[in-house]
Amino acid sequence: MKLQMEKIPRSVRLRREAEVTTLHLLDQRKLPDAVEYLRLTQWPGVVDAIKTLAVRGAPAIGVAGAAAVALWAADENSHPSELTQVCQSIADARPTAVNLSWAVDKARMAAEEAFSQGASRGEVAGFLFDLVKDMEAQDEQSNRAIGAYGAALLNEGSRVLTHCNAGSLATVFFGTALGVIYAAAEQGKIKRVYADETRPVGQGSRLTSWELAQAGVPVTLICDNMAASLMAQGAIDAVIVGADRIAANGDTANKIGTYGVAVLAKHHGVPFYIAAPASTIDISLPDGSFIPIEQRNASEVLPSPIEGVEVWNPAFDVTPAELIAGIITDRGVFKPEEIADSF
Amino acid sequence: MKLQMEKIPRSVRLRREAEVTTLHLLDQRKLPDAVEYLRLTQWPGVVDAIKTLAVRGAPAIGVAGAAAVALWAADENSHPSELTQVCQSIADARPTAVNLSWAVDKARMAAEEAFSQGASRGEVAGFLFDLVKDMEAQDEQSNRAIGAYGAALLNEGSRVLTHCNAGSLATVFFGTALGVIYAAAEQGKIKRVYADETRPVGQGSRLTSWELAQAGVPVTLICDNMAASLMAQGAIDAVIVGADRIAANGDTANKIGTYGVAVLAKHHGVPFYIAAPASTIDISLPDGSFIPIEQRNASEVLPSPIEGVEVWNPAFDVTPAELIAGIITDRGVFKPEEIADSF
Repeated sequence: MKLQMEKIPRSVRLRREAEVTTLHLLDQRKLPDAVEYLRLTQWPGVVDAIKTLAVRGAPAIGVAGAAAVALWAADENSHPSELTQVCQSIADARPTAVNLSWAVDKARMAAEEAFSQGASRGEVAGFLFDLVKDMEAQDEQSNRAIGAYGAALLNEGSRVLTHCNAGSLATVFFGTALGVIYAAAEQGKIKRVYADETRPVGQGSRLTSWELAQAGVPVTLICDNMAASLMAQGAIDAVIVGADRIAANGDTANKIGTYGVAVLAKHHGVPFYIAAPASTIDISLPDGSFIPIEQRNASEVLPSPIEGVEVWNPAFDVTPAELIAGIITDRGVFKPEEIADSF
Repeated sequence: MKLQMEKIPRSVRLRREAEVTTLHLLDQRKLPDAVEYLRLTQWPGVVDAIKTLAVRGAPAIGVAGAAAVALWAADENSHPSELTQVCQSIADARPTAVNLSWAVDKARMAAEEAFSQGASRGEVAGFLFDLVKDMEAQDEQSNRAIGAYGAALLNEGSRVLTHCNAGSLATVFFGTALGVIYAAAEQGKIKRVYADETRPVGQGSRLTSWELAQAGVPVTLICDNMAASLMAQGAIDAVIVGADRIAANGDTANKIGTYGVAVLAKHHGVPFYIAAPASTIDISLPDGSFIPIEQRNASEVLPSPIEGVEVWNPAFDVTPAELIAGIITDRGVFKPEEIADSF
């Protein structure tokens, strides 16, 4: 199948426009109705974009976070003494996806190293610009590797269920879970993708279904509570989702609802795969119980409050390693129990 | 706990207003924002109200269906020769809940019997009015019996998950699954109810959470995809849901998503109960594969279509008997395998 990947807009791109370092962020809150970009030149604007989900997806917010450090360095009013605090503020924008702190740390350490060797703020800004451009290129390259490794796991005629958006939109380009689907579709292996709508924010209904349709992949949108019925009918051959953080034992945090899908897959004998770059693996945490789970506002679930009704709105859940058939990374496919010794 | 049941409006009530037989239907499409009643005097209006979910819930649409036959008989332009066709049209309004055809059949048979004994249309109208008033009273009585039998299954401090709305709003009054919760709450056994929002129509977010809060029962609303996380945390002691049709082997059709909750409950060792009156049991069907599943419009899931994106929107699913710990009826609690010989 010939895909039309060029119809999917890029999520994150750092540019120099008329000498001004500017971060272009696809405003994903407006999709699928409008394709609009935020053009940010100040780091606090990036923090706000991350918190309000204008940019989302673990790999994408990682690159955006590093780009925020680069914007800080590019501002002639910035002073090296602020670096640690600025990086902390950026990394704290969202707690669950480790890619954000990973990427911000990379940028911070590069800046510290340069400052310690006497580089000026302007020189550091240049180094960080190049670092972010490298991250952008590396992200797409990682995703294409994930896609190639993952596609080898799928048979012809596969019907794949995915949850949330681990697509091109969640990365710089090409996607992780959807990267596997794009690679497999190019090999003629994908019959249809079923996209969970992914309440409360609708990453499946607004983003995944849209980007798959843009690329030309057959896609059916379902409510989150319909996945079990599809599996009972034998209509799902594999589940592939992304990840926000993978602990040393293979326990994986991902968008709320992922764990339930993993239990359903187990019950129906459907293989359940995680697709994520190595930067999502957090070897410092022994298991999933140590992963911080972001709680978000009740208004996402219930826009008009009802008197006497409480709301619980965790943004992520943890899927235990024993429910995961394989973790598809840019370095190959691993069993959860192989993670600790491999990364 | 002293409940405020009087704060929950009744769903269905047939009345004579200035000599005109009128069906009062709480318009559940407007809840929780407004408590408004449709006042219907013509049977096609009832069919429309059932199809568009102004009235919903298996027991409630049953009584509404019988009331529609009564409205037909009360119309002086009606002719006995139309009875069979009118009843078929009413029973066809929604296919899955057997209570609708059960109640319409009761009304039709009563009318046929009366006509065959020489009763006039006006006399039949009177008989059917009384029949519907009996059904209304019987429904509430059944629900209070279900409540009493079900409450005995729960321990003090119970945290109960429910899906969709099997509440007072789904019946004439008091509810089936929520009837169990109200009865148990009156006994001080309910710590908290977790209500799945129940996409795509939101019976949990708009109806269940609202009616529980009206009555004074502590309630937390969650997205459908959050139930698994609650169970993993040990926060759910029992699941209780309603039913639209129960086959002879105990397989049970209920709102889409129920089956997935049952699988999750099994995985976490949480007992999963069905609560329904005897009229929901369809002994003529050997198992759940024979239950017709209504498919509804894509626009319920995706109000603004996205080019290239298909939608799957079944309104119900079937939970196999082996996932059901007990079926709480107005005649007692039964194991699924006891249904065939008990009804």
